[in-house]
Amino acid sequence: MRLAVAQRAATADVAGNLAVLERAAAGAARAGADLLLTPELFTTGYDPGRVHADPAVLPRVADLARRHGVALVVSEPHEGAITAVVVDRDGTVRGRYVKTHLYGDAERAAFRPGDGTPLLVDVAGLRVGVLVCFDVEFPETVRGLALAGADVVVVPTAICDASVARVLLPARAYENRVALAYANHHGPAPDGQTFSGGSLVVGPDGRVLAAAGADADALLVVDVDAQDLHRAREVVDYLPLRRVETYRIR
Amino acid sequence: MRLAVAQRAATADVAGNLAVLERAAAGAARAGADLLLTPELFTTGYDPGRVHADPAVLPRVADLARRHGVALVVSEPHEGAITAVVVDRDGTVRGRYVKTHLYGDAERAAFRPGDGTPLLVDVAGLRVGVLVCFDVEFPETVRGLALAGADVVVVPTAICDASVARVLLPARAYENRVALAYANHHGPAPDGQTFSGGSLVVGPDGRVLAAAGADADALLVVDVDAQDLHRAREVVDYLPLRRVETYRIR
Repeated sequence: MRLAVAQRAATADVAGNLAVLERAAAGAARAGADLLLTPELFTTGYDPGRVHADPAVLPRVADLARRHGVALVVSEPHEGAITAVVVDRDGTVRGRYVKTHLYGDAERAAFRPGDGTPLLVDVAGLRVGVLVCFDVEFPETVRGLALAGADVVVVPTAICDASVARVLLPARAYENRVALAYANHHGPAPDGQTFSGGSLVVGPDGRVLAAAGADADALLVVDVDAQDLHRAREVVDYLPLRRVETYRIR
Repeated sequence: MRLAVAQRAATADVAGNLAVLERAAAGAARAGADLLLTPELFTTGYDPGRVHADPAVLPRVADLARRHGVALVVSEPHEGAITAVVVDRDGTVRGRYVKTHLYGDAERAAFRPGDGTPLLVDVAGLRVGVLVCFDVEFPETVRGLALAGADVVVVPTAICDASVARVLLPARAYENRVALAYANHHGPAPDGQTFSGGSLVVGPDGRVLAAAGADADALLVVDVDAQDLHRAREVVDYLPLRRVETYRIR
């Protein structure tokens, strides 16, 4: 599976953001990518207090996926929640995930959290699970997707703290023997902060396969295949060695 | 709390290993440490197929803790299991933890696994939880100790793969906002392998506070206090933000 991750800066201009998305999709398609991951609430810009759902956006995303022939993971507000949608390369909407862990007062004031229903979609022979931003900081979420059969976990994000990508994401991949991709914004964030970029792809052995800088556009393109997953699981396959009956984590 | 970690090479000579332990305890005491963490099965040497319980060892460990005035975490075989014992600075045995996740065929052939009963002991005003080696690679174990109130998690280990300390341990500390200490052997391991050293202490923000090299004795001495834990938990305190009802991890 050829996985692409676009780090970009969004604005409040939906049409402009869709044009950025279209150029990223074209670039990913030229690079032969099967799937392009994009940042959290990219189509509207990330601004919890201001954004609203727009039913006209997803058909346009589906259209550009179809025209460029690349599957997309796009995050948008929907029915009062922060969501991420997987659109196939033929423009079919494969499913929607609702962010389960809202971050901070602004998100909690503006959105309702999801109930954790997992989204898993087969792409180019691998099983792709979807989370959004803060979700991935909780080991329980990636564990749940891995137990449900995920090979790759993709995470649109909007974050101003580079330590999450540096410290937590390699561990999430390693401890579950899955590949993991994280697409962040760069540029200005609400409240005068700055998105920390640092989008990355980590392999199932915890190695960073590609990483973007802090403050510029970047397109990461990385191949992840069943053989990589198999090799990591041969070293230690954690899932069957869990001792669930001994855990005190309720 | 002043926390010390001894990275040492053990042999099959119990008396010799106790002498090494005594010198490490003397050094930790001189450095003002409250607690000294030592590697997995250090008193016997780590060799699952060969080691056996020796009831004469723990009284000698307790005696040297008392003489040097430093609490010790020492790992030994006991009743067919791999265990870790906390001994107070006055020589009182505070409790014993039984390793829950056995690693590899040799350990599984030689030992029975524990039932996950946690060991938490107050030392110098902080609550210290104990795991052994492979246990810490599973996020469920440290999560369980953190939910039970641990501020610091200490882990005797015997490992030949440096990637665990590098990739997983900073994440375990970060995602639970606890400090974490890991004491490994260096030198020859069973089956012709070599222990990877790399003992370390990580703060509750995931930063490595001290780390040993791969192949030499090292004594790490680091202060961890309630203020450090409080600061990290102010950035994000993960435990109260868990959405337990949404997790699919049984």
